[in-house]
Amino acid sequence: KINGERLWDSLMEMAKIGPGIAGGNNRQTLTDDDATGRALFQKWCEDAGCTMGLDEMGTMFARREGTDPDALPVYVGSHLDTQPTGGKYDGVLGVLGGLEIVRSLNDLGIKTKHPIVVTNWTNEEGTRFAPAMLASGVFAGKHALDWAYDREDAEGKRFGDELERIGWKGDEKVGDRKMHAFFELHIEQGPILEVEGKDIGVVTHGQGLRWVECTVTGKESHTGSTPMHMRKNAGRGLALITELVHEIAMKNQPNAVGAIGHIDVYPNSRNIIPGKTVFTVDMRTHLLDKLNGMVDEFMARAPKLCEGIGVTFESQIVGQFDPPAFDKDCVKAIRDAAERLGYSHMDIVSGAGHDACWINDVAPTAMVMCPCVDGLSHNEAEEISPEWANAGANVLFHAVVETAEI
Amino acid sequence: KINGERLWDSLMEMAKIGPGIAGGNNRQTLTDDDATGRALFQKWCEDAGCTMGLDEMGTMFARREGTDPDALPVYVGSHLDTQPTGGKYDGVLGVLGGLEIVRSLNDLGIKTKHPIVVTNWTNEEGTRFAPAMLASGVFAGKHALDWAYDREDAEGKRFGDELERIGWKGDEKVGDRKMHAFFELHIEQGPILEVEGKDIGVVTHGQGLRWVECTVTGKESHTGSTPMHMRKNAGRGLALITELVHEIAMKNQPNAVGAIGHIDVYPNSRNIIPGKTVFTVDMRTHLLDKLNGMVDEFMARAPKLCEGIGVTFESQIVGQFDPPAFDKDCVKAIRDAAERLGYSHMDIVSGAGHDACWINDVAPTAMVMCPCVDGLSHNEAEEISPEWANAGANVLFHAVVETAEI
Ligand SMILES: NC(=O)NCCC(=O)O
Ligand SMILES: NC(=O)NCCC(=O)O
Repeated sequence: KINGERLWDSLMEMAKIGPGIAGGNNRQTLTDDDATGRALFQKWCEDAGCTMGLDEMGTMFARREGTDPDALPVYVGSHLDTQPTGGKYDGVLGVLGGLEIVRSLNDLGIKTKHPIVVTNWTNEEGTRFAPAMLASGVFAGKHALDWAYDREDAEGKRFGDELERIGWKGDEKVGDRKMHAFFELHIEQGPILEVEGKDIGVVTHGQGLRWVECTVTGKESHTGSTPMHMRKNAGRGLALITELVHEIAMKNQPNAVGAIGHIDVYPNSRNIIPGKTVFTVDMRTHLLDKLNGMVDEFMARAPKLCEGIGVTFESQIVGQFDPPAFDKDCVKAIRDAAERLGYSHMDIVSGAGHDACWINDVAPTAMVMCPCVDGLSHNEAEEISPEWANAGANVLFHAVVETAEI
Repeated sequence: KINGERLWDSLMEMAKIGPGIAGGNNRQTLTDDDATGRALFQKWCEDAGCTMGLDEMGTMFARREGTDPDALPVYVGSHLDTQPTGGKYDGVLGVLGGLEIVRSLNDLGIKTKHPIVVTNWTNEEGTRFAPAMLASGVFAGKHALDWAYDREDAEGKRFGDELERIGWKGDEKVGDRKMHAFFELHIEQGPILEVEGKDIGVVTHGQGLRWVECTVTGKESHTGSTPMHMRKNAGRGLALITELVHEIAMKNQPNAVGAIGHIDVYPNSRNIIPGKTVFTVDMRTHLLDKLNGMVDEFMARAPKLCEGIGVTFESQIVGQFDPPAFDKDCVKAIRDAAERLGYSHMDIVSGAGHDACWINDVAPTAMVMCPCVDGLSHNEAEEISPEWANAGANVLFHAVVETAEI
């Protein structure tokens, strides 16, 4: 078993870097706080006897050697970056849970045949730079490196420039590593495990996702002196599309979701009718046909709604992945570990996207989930119990060590 | 007649200060650019032989002496501050049109019995600090000085602190001045004069206004892993209220308007369901009963709409004025001047709020309007012709000089 107390202490230590305003974290990717968090993780890894690799996307690979020089490593990890108003566990648990495996193996004096590599993927959240899971996406060959470097944040700063600025751009070519397997521990970020009273979620599938960035263009004009019939109000386009997204998600129940999280209004003045609104629609479900159907319906209806009120609609896909089905053997290793350790468990579909969803395309992959209070995540109030963290990390430990062979 | 070319040159000179990004201006109140614009105006006034007064709200009063030491001054002016994406004429024409009167009287060697005071009211636009027409509102006794000082911009900066910072806080007590009359020239900011083919609008009334700042509170959570039935999406509250405002304005046609211009979304991340939206509803009409009825309906229905989708609604009035009826004699002076000068004219209701609307409560007041292209204002593309500017300034000149008596 792993050392649950040490894992918890490390989680709390990491949470001191980039504190939020309400008890959570704001350690967005490629900020100074991200760099500070990376340095702490590196120190911990080196203290645990690992050597650190760093690729051109800034992804960190802490390697504990195995006994067989020819054996491919078993990878384990997640991400240390957070939402602007994020929690202390989303991503972090998976990275520090991986580190805890190495520390526990050291404590127990156990050597594995396959090396174990604890990984911190860059920019999983996708808030500052869309899309989410950017570095794992490049690793899996989904995006070109230069395309990733050219992603811009809201202030127009380039991903590539910011990666250099914080000093975490490595030399290693992205995706060159071959993996024996990849495991990711993550909090559920939804309510199912808690409601069902289970300690462990054995993740068999993930949801697919489409992010559609929409631009509605009307005409800036005076809120007081522009007669109603002459208005081209881009705010109304946003309103109608907000409800359209909700309607499409509702009619695709169960297991489909849709919402708009990010909205920019131009010029955003109390007495100017919005001339432009830019916002991103997030739609997901774990069935590919359904997902494509939702997007098709959206793309057919959104422009018409806008036309009906005299504004124009443009869109582009800024993030997408198809629903992944995880590797049967890796999933079984997790289910067996939960069973062996006596934890209550259930099979589950991941509601969120994860680096594991991309890595699944290039290596045998699976995920372990632990519950979180009220299913709340992407909120500073995100909470888990030390017992849940401990259970998740123990299952991860057993699945990884079994796969890495003693 | 005034010197139309000189007036136009001054308009173009002022427009160089705080240029926008699309040919207009961004010279928001109490910014460094506002200070630069004020200094230029002061220089021009002093060159024209005026003495400058400055009150505790930063309002500027450039005085040309009259021949009768006991006669109250005739005031004329408007505002030099602009929207973030504003035009070159909104407000500026009224201030520089006033200055042009003084310059023309100097050219012609004419002395008036009453002094003439050209005024630049602080923070007419209300974008950076709500409400609009703040300094004229304090002047007319509608707001307390300290309350005005405590208004905050989006970054939390206080009006009082910013006024001191830019160096334009005067000693003169606000509202102490007594006025013989007040005249304001302004672009229409709507389409009516152009459509009707009139040079001059004789403003008999203004619209009343209510600004209702609304806060819709839901719960931040993950867009992917939060099931639809557990969502509290504050973005949907914004959407439903956007359409409610539109519906209320439409059913109060003709002559009523409503829209939402300013929206803040928290935390504004692509994969976080909005936990809070804050936005300002702007509703107007020139009939007081209708205006109150619109607000009452809004206040009754908005909370219920929010309740229906599991989010909460709070609101506060952040700007309001009742529909003004301008002084009959001053209005007549304008109509007579237009007639005498041979300009086509019509009576009109002002769609926008103006400093004249507040001053109307403490002095005989009226307004002259000139057309603007496509009725467009609060847009960098706002445009007027030199002929329109000239006609408006000539009517202003005649009305002011007649009232100030030669
Ligand atoms: N786990 C997580 O929140 N990832 C961010 C990508 C997503 O929005 O699902
Ligand atoms: N004239 C003008 O645009 N004033 C700002 C106040 C308003 O919104 O009407």
